[in-house]
Amino acid sequence: MSQIKRVLIVGGTHGNELTGVYTTKKFERHPVLIDRPSFETFTLIGNPNAVAAGTRYIDHDLNRCFNFKELEEQLRCGYEVQRAKDIFDQFGQTGSLPIDLIIDQHSTTSNAGVMLILDQLDTFSLNLAAYLSSIQPTLNVYSSANSGRSQDSLRSLAKHRVGIEIGPIAHGTLHAELFQKNEALVYAILDYVEQYNTHGIELEKSSLPLYQYVVAVDYPRNSEGEIFAMIHPQLQFQDYKPLNPGDPLFLTFDGEVITYQGDFLAFPVFINEAAYYEKAIAMCLAEKQNIGIS
Amino acid sequence: MSQIKRVLIVGGTHGNELTGVYTTKKFERHPVLIDRPSFETFTLIGNPNAVAAGTRYIDHDLNRCFNFKELEEQLRCGYEVQRAKDIFDQFGQTGSLPIDLIIDQHSTTSNAGVMLILDQLDTFSLNLAAYLSSIQPTLNVYSSANSGRSQDSLRSLAKHRVGIEIGPIAHGTLHAELFQKNEALVYAILDYVEQYNTHGIELEKSSLPLYQYVVAVDYPRNSEGEIFAMIHPQLQFQDYKPLNPGDPLFLTFDGEVITYQGDFLAFPVFINEAAYYEKAIAMCLAEKQNIGIS
Repeated sequence: MSQIKRVLIVGGTHGNELTGVYTTKKFERHPVLIDRPSFETFTLIGNPNAVAAGTRYIDHDLNRCFNFKELEEQLRCGYEVQRAKDIFDQFGQTGSLPIDLIIDQHSTTSNAGVMLILDQLDTFSLNLAAYLSSIQPTLNVYSSANSGRSQDSLRSLAKHRVGIEIGPIAHGTLHAELFQKNEALVYAILDYVEQYNTHGIELEKSSLPLYQYVVAVDYPRNSEGEIFAMIHPQLQFQDYKPLNPGDPLFLTFDGEVITYQGDFLAFPVFINEAAYYEKAIAMCLAEKQNIGIS
Repeated sequence: MSQIKRVLIVGGTHGNELTGVYTTKKFERHPVLIDRPSFETFTLIGNPNAVAAGTRYIDHDLNRCFNFKELEEQLRCGYEVQRAKDIFDQFGQTGSLPIDLIIDQHSTTSNAGVMLILDQLDTFSLNLAAYLSSIQPTLNVYSSANSGRSQDSLRSLAKHRVGIEIGPIAHGTLHAELFQKNEALVYAILDYVEQYNTHGIELEKSSLPLYQYVVAVDYPRNSEGEIFAMIHPQLQFQDYKPLNPGDPLFLTFDGEVITYQGDFLAFPVFINEAAYYEKAIAMCLAEKQNIGIS
């Protein structure tokens, strides 16, 4: 078992997700809050220029800028591409301070509650999620392993990584109750790592409910690419609730209902996330699984 | 009694308030919805460049660009200043199509419900509000007459004007239920104008509950101007609810409660509106009044 030596807590990967920004600044004011004996903890405001501008990003979504090969092929440049390289040079596995675990704090306009995102279903990640679920049963654990997102996100530069999503929060705002829940989850993760490094962990839980990404669903769009429907009122804020074939999905501006035509029992997440309109995502459909934890 | 000859329905004065944008586009696709026999109805996307960019504005808030004397004194320029002049040249009182009534559709991250904003408490505005309240008792009527905003907003160029605010809606998203409520309110206003022009209106209601703007309250800020507290959890989404001296107002990032120290029973509105963080407004405090309607 290799120890976790360096943990990086990130806020402001998206500049208008204020919870992570102000939580990270709080940690920088009071480092004792995130000090643990067995490892070093660092903090990072991911996209400071976007934070200053009050926007998600300046030129590109920073959280899609860490696949450098792809960036070169696309000839992408701009502030975030340079910022990603700088972060990689410092915290990447070949950098000056290679990071073993990144905790990347996000917020969403969808009804995420408190959500832990796993990018890979390795033993460390699953045990961490099982531990956190055991102390916080309302935690929603989501796996993006099948989404193709594991290679281009900021946290992909670390050996282990988790994303936190809290919601619903309008971008550009703070929500005190969710601020405190996010902060508590960060402490719980740090406490887990401390135990993992020192005594090892004994888990009582034998299975972990996990929402596994299957497919993204776009809004209905006309020939010019403009949306012509909204999330159906019955589906709004119903993240993690079962969606059966035939259930209402969208409501057109003219009042017509569009139903779910998939062939599996889906659990939608990221329903009506503001930043995903431009990414052609109205929601992500997940399958609910129970993962055995030994 | 002078008739209303031209009505202008505006959406997208703020580019990321999608409800007004898509409602206005719907009206443009189906003009019959807003046709009424006794007056002409026009539509306008206020800030099309901001709509395309998915932001509130490009250079300046368009809804603060219609006091041209002030703009000249401040030497302000940029996209919205030119856009304001173009709109004024077309729809202002000395323009080619002078407008008698503007209906300006907005949305807010605060818990506005369905809110009608009156900029002035003239007989036309009060009777319109009383009529709308009589058919929709949950409508919240707010007067910004004391806020100093009556001279620089887009709708200030018309003889009569109302603002619609619906919420809570995260900017950059749509909320189907509130979309339909906003649309229904626009139709009710048009129907009122039709009756006003033709038969006159008989109002049964003798008094109108009105939230009258008193003062704006900023977030607590440090010497660098950075906020150090959030809306208190007990106050989040509690728009139009009574706030007594001593009640919790903010919660600092370190967990301390800051209470309301004012000397009057306040009714906060626009609590936690995302666009107001940069305007140094955490909420507006209003007084509740009952206005007699004869």
